[in-house]
Amino acid sequence: MIRRPLRTALAALLLAASPALADEGMWTYDHPPLQQLKQRYGFEPAKEWLDHARLASVRFMDGGSGSFVSPDGLMITNHHVGLGCIQNVSSAENDYVKNGFYAPTRDKEAACPGYEVNVLVGIEDATAKVLGAVRAQMSDKDAREARKAAITKIENDCNAASGLRCNVVTLYQGGEFALYRYKKYTDVRLVFAPEQSIAFFGGDPDNFTFPRHDVDICLVRAYENGQPAKPAAYLPFSTSGVADGELVFVSGNPGSTSRQETVAQLQLQRDVALPLTLELLKRRLAVLREYSARGPEQARRAKAQVFGLENSFKAQEGRLGALQDARAMARKLEEERQLRAKVAADAGLATATGDPWAAIESAEKKGAGRVNESFLVGFGGSRLLGIAGNVVRYVAEVQKPNEQRLEEYIDSNLEPLKNRLYSRAPVFDDLEEATLANQLSWALEKLGPAHPFVTTVLGGKTPAEVAKAAVAGTKLKDPEARRALVEGGSAAVAASSDSMIVLARRIDPLARELRKFREDEVEAPTTRAGEKIAQARFKTYGRTAPPDATFTLRLSYGTVKGFPAEGTTIAPFTTFHGMIDRSLSQGGKEPWALPPRWLEKQGALALATPLNFASTNDIIGGNSGSPVLNAKGEFVGIVFDSNIHGLAWDYFYTDERARCVSVDARGIVEALRSVFAADALVKELLAR
Amino acid sequence: MIRRPLRTALAALLLAASPALADEGMWTYDHPPLQQLKQRYGFEPAKEWLDHARLASVRFMDGGSGSFVSPDGLMITNHHVGLGCIQNVSSAENDYVKNGFYAPTRDKEAACPGYEVNVLVGIEDATAKVLGAVRAQMSDKDAREARKAAITKIENDCNAASGLRCNVVTLYQGGEFALYRYKKYTDVRLVFAPEQSIAFFGGDPDNFTFPRHDVDICLVRAYENGQPAKPAAYLPFSTSGVADGELVFVSGNPGSTSRQETVAQLQLQRDVALPLTLELLKRRLAVLREYSARGPEQARRAKAQVFGLENSFKAQEGRLGALQDARAMARKLEEERQLRAKVAADAGLATATGDPWAAIESAEKKGAGRVNESFLVGFGGSRLLGIAGNVVRYVAEVQKPNEQRLEEYIDSNLEPLKNRLYSRAPVFDDLEEATLANQLSWALEKLGPAHPFVTTVLGGKTPAEVAKAAVAGTKLKDPEARRALVEGGSAAVAASSDSMIVLARRIDPLARELRKFREDEVEAPTTRAGEKIAQARFKTYGRTAPPDATFTLRLSYGTVKGFPAEGTTIAPFTTFHGMIDRSLSQGGKEPWALPPRWLEKQGALALATPLNFASTNDIIGGNSGSPVLNAKGEFVGIVFDSNIHGLAWDYFYTDERARCVSVDARGIVEALRSVFAADALVKELLAR
Repeated sequence: MIRRPLRTALAALLLAASPALADEGMWTYDHPPLQQLKQRYGFEPAKEWLDHARLASVRFMDGGSGSFVSPDGLMITNHHVGLGCIQNVSSAENDYVKNGFYAPTRDKEAACPGYEVNVLVGIEDATAKVLGAVRAQMSDKDAREARKAAITKIENDCNAASGLRCNVVTLYQGGEFALYRYKKYTDVRLVFAPEQSIAFFGGDPDNFTFPRHDVDICLVRAYENGQPAKPAAYLPFSTSGVADGELVFVSGNPGSTSRQETVAQLQLQRDVALPLTLELLKRRLAVLREYSARGPEQARRAKAQVFGLENSFKAQEGRLGALQDARAMARKLEEERQLRAKVAADAGLATATGDPWAAIESAEKKGAGRVNESFLVGFGGSRLLGIAGNVVRYVAEVQKPNEQRLEEYIDSNLEPLKNRLYSRAPVFDDLEEATLANQLSWALEKLGPAHPFVTTVLGGKTPAEVAKAAVAGTKLKDPEARRALVEGGSAAVAASSDSMIVLARRIDPLARELRKFREDEVEAPTTRAGEKIAQARFKTYGRTAPPDATFTLRLSYGTVKGFPAEGTTIAPFTTFHGMIDRSLSQGGKEPWALPPRWLEKQGALALATPLNFASTNDIIGGNSGSPVLNAKGEFVGIVFDSNIHGLAWDYFYTDERARCVSVDARGIVEALRSVFAADALVKELLAR
Repeated sequence: MIRRPLRTALAALLLAASPALADEGMWTYDHPPLQQLKQRYGFEPAKEWLDHARLASVRFMDGGSGSFVSPDGLMITNHHVGLGCIQNVSSAENDYVKNGFYAPTRDKEAACPGYEVNVLVGIEDATAKVLGAVRAQMSDKDAREARKAAITKIENDCNAASGLRCNVVTLYQGGEFALYRYKKYTDVRLVFAPEQSIAFFGGDPDNFTFPRHDVDICLVRAYENGQPAKPAAYLPFSTSGVADGELVFVSGNPGSTSRQETVAQLQLQRDVALPLTLELLKRRLAVLREYSARGPEQARRAKAQVFGLENSFKAQEGRLGALQDARAMARKLEEERQLRAKVAADAGLATATGDPWAAIESAEKKGAGRVNESFLVGFGGSRLLGIAGNVVRYVAEVQKPNEQRLEEYIDSNLEPLKNRLYSRAPVFDDLEEATLANQLSWALEKLGPAHPFVTTVLGGKTPAEVAKAAVAGTKLKDPEARRALVEGGSAAVAASSDSMIVLARRIDPLARELRKFREDEVEAPTTRAGEKIAQARFKTYGRTAPPDATFTLRLSYGTVKGFPAEGTTIAPFTTFHGMIDRSLSQGGKEPWALPPRWLEKQGALALATPLNFASTNDIIGGNSGSPVLNAKGEFVGIVFDSNIHGLAWDYFYTDERARCVSVDARGIVEALRSVFAADALVKELLAR
């Protein structure tokens, strides 16, 4: 799945773009790729086409995309985007995650607490307003403040005048600013979800792969004033479907890309950060497998973590593989060489810019010098230690004014943080001990016995001893104990003799020092230099390519297309026959088991119906749930993943083997009709 | 498919073996891997088990394997092994290749002219007898003659005494000799064949791949004295099938492997021969694609050649990929280093052996110096030129005593040669011109304008002019014109003014000079040195691993197992659901179109039945049609291919991703029953 991932520190810098290749590009709706579409596909979308696609597209605020698919506010997104809601409406008696959910009538639709859905209703250039607030003689710090103040004023004025959600989006790393205005829907109700085992058929093993056989969908409805919303636009479901080679569009909210990092940054990712990440994941997996081997109960407890880590390993390995592609890196190097030459040849530009590439390389290398610490000095390795670290920081941070806090603790982030903090998800002592001991052993090995973190945490004991004592002496397994400490505030936390709290209190100052080092010595100079490169690029090439992704609405185009693998061609479509074949060929075991309803209704299902398809559309995490449109502006599918080669799209676009993976609209309708007998829903989707 | 390929010159040298790894090994039946089976799988086959498997296994003399599957002489092999027979029994009215064949009663079974099937009834060590004929003081040439005479006498004595086919097989490149005695069946009749499009479903694109969905089978019956033969053993069809992870055996006739070539030889393959082969194939493909683009009729004419070349390209690329595997080559190098160290440490051995590695490297490098010529100086690039070359040589060679002829023209090879020579397969002028012009251009480019081949063939004209004139001025498109020349003998050929014959007469002396160079300067010293290495290896390690493949009966073991690919696990089985999914996902187009009978009977077919499976058994070309046995000695499947990673098995065994690919016995029975209504056949296969 391609839900928006958390950004890694080293991937945080987004720069502006050089000319796009092939079907590359997550284009903003105010600068659609009209020329490319005309030249490559002879397609000229009218303004109405673009407005229609934009107004039918929605963004789920906690990370995902979707679209309106009926005039009565019905929206479709991925199951993994709607999962929070499905969990929330479930109860001990009704496990809708496991069994699926269907409201045959409106009164059965179930509210999704906390869901906010946005529709992009306007884009205005705000570059002059934002940059107009900055004076040449200002220091870097004052310039940043002035810019921030201008942005806040634009947003507040807009909000006061319209009541809309107004965001100023920084594009091209500061080369452009745009005011995005959104209509908000906050009354969102669950209409339909299939079983998770069908939405995520093949589970982690089949994640990031194609051929694929997932019904990764979820239908929700927007309400306004207690009535189904009447959206400005919706995408009618195509009944004819989509064909091999057909031009298709994806309209969604890609989270972030790092296509404009400097070669030095990418090389450090490749040679330092990603190998260390893989080492970390491998160590954790080894510990969990050893733990799982102790018995079936242990295996059950560790299962979700093992799958998650395996999936992360696969993703990170895919990204590393992309950066190890010598041809791709040579292209990056050549692009950078050309831009540097252009900057050097322009006296004015060279003076204004300096050598930001050297500045970035120097700052990143400084950071790389403490990279082991950035993986180890903190509250990692144990859920309980993570909770303790959050408790210790929570009580300290909330005492400060909002703008001085660590970002995780600003007011708007506290609600979700507390949800996680007080979660009743079970914690297992022996598992906690094993993973914490592993983390501390790794620290001992990587940092050496004399490192302050090691001496502070171990205090002369072995990692196993420290882990055992910390787990034995804590009450934090009980969410109420966590709540009591948080509500007791800093006095209660300072006075606590809970073993995990004590450990977290010792670690906190070391972790804060490291964080300050990264912010001041690595990120600040890198950001400043990155802005210079972006501006130089923009002056040199202009707006020939779209900006890096910013979790705002983008349009990408491409074609339905298979790809070469294993000595043959993977066809662009799968069918329900393929789903059954995959289940049978894996012996029907998890995660390829078909739910009871699917086994019962197999005879009624038109197995030849297309189920999933692959296309060359440029996407990234955050595009989960994006509609796939045909040239008529109809809904032909819904994006839910990329294949393993698509992991390269973080760094560069390629269409040799990388593919966007979607659920086919025909498969959706067939499943709703023949497996779920959701006739009212099918009627609503197919009405014209 | 893995029908036995023609051996390439550089792959001709087979040496003895070093210790086997994992499930490696194509074991001779007189030295089965009892210890490995016991240690790895706790399986101890009794003598009866081995005799049963051996006596139920058959060899098809023109290159393939099979097995008896009923007490009434019924045999199963691959469709592509029986294809010659299916073609022969077809007529203009009845195209059994296209439509399939089924004889519901014995009287409808159709004779396969020229088919000979062998059952290995005895193996005796003949090493002492063969090597006993050689005296130490003999020259190399006399020793070879003495050995050859001893082998001929053993074979003739055996044949006279038993009436059996008797062959002395050279194992471990002369380290061992064994007398193999075979019972022959020469009355073989066709019983059943499916449509070729189902036997070879997915065609060339899906060849060498898995997942796979082929019913690559053909049933024939052996007759003796006009009655169905009663074989000494047959394999009952398993009704319970085979499971993931189950131990399975393959009993068949692998053609040849090159696992004991020296590192220098493999490096020359990797760096010289295979890249040049790929260049040749790429050029030919480019020409054919350009030709195909001229129109639909041209595309139709070139189609079979394009597919064949694409498939060769895939196979050769797979082999090159195997040799580019740095880890595998490092292992080879280490093995060689160890053996050389052992030889050097043994004074007697070192004196007797000299430095054969250096001798091979020197000879091969000499050969590599003329490698461009070995690809170009000959009758390649045009079917008509190939025919002309054969005519010119035929009339010259048949005048010589048998033992002095080029091997292709010895008496026993003349019949199949004439069949090819007089084939009525259509020849297209424009296609001939295009491919011949390409070959001559390539020669000009690679050999330079002053090379004798280039000056002789072009005579100052351009490649296009020469090709056009040669094609325009020949009558060889007519098979009768070829026959007239052959029957007219050397006088007729010498007097001919046919343009292709004239061209072939000019090329012949140059091609013969090159061939003599390769035989005398490359192959002779390489073979002599190879024998020394083999003997040194045998003295050092003994019989710890089986000899390289020799198109004689071997037993290999392994397990049913999936493999990692595309970020997930390819399951070890496919089903009929998968076949239908593959056909639909490719839009039902060739070579994934289902024949009419399959479309009609789809509803009757139990789609969940296993169809093909993957296993780790060590196989190579020649194993086509080999039975897969379970530990009970039952027939559970039939080998028909390896996946793309199995192409490495020419050079070394690996089970990370390389797999043997078989049709599942359950899929065979289900297809016979539900698609072909071949009830009598099913009854015979399942009778106990």
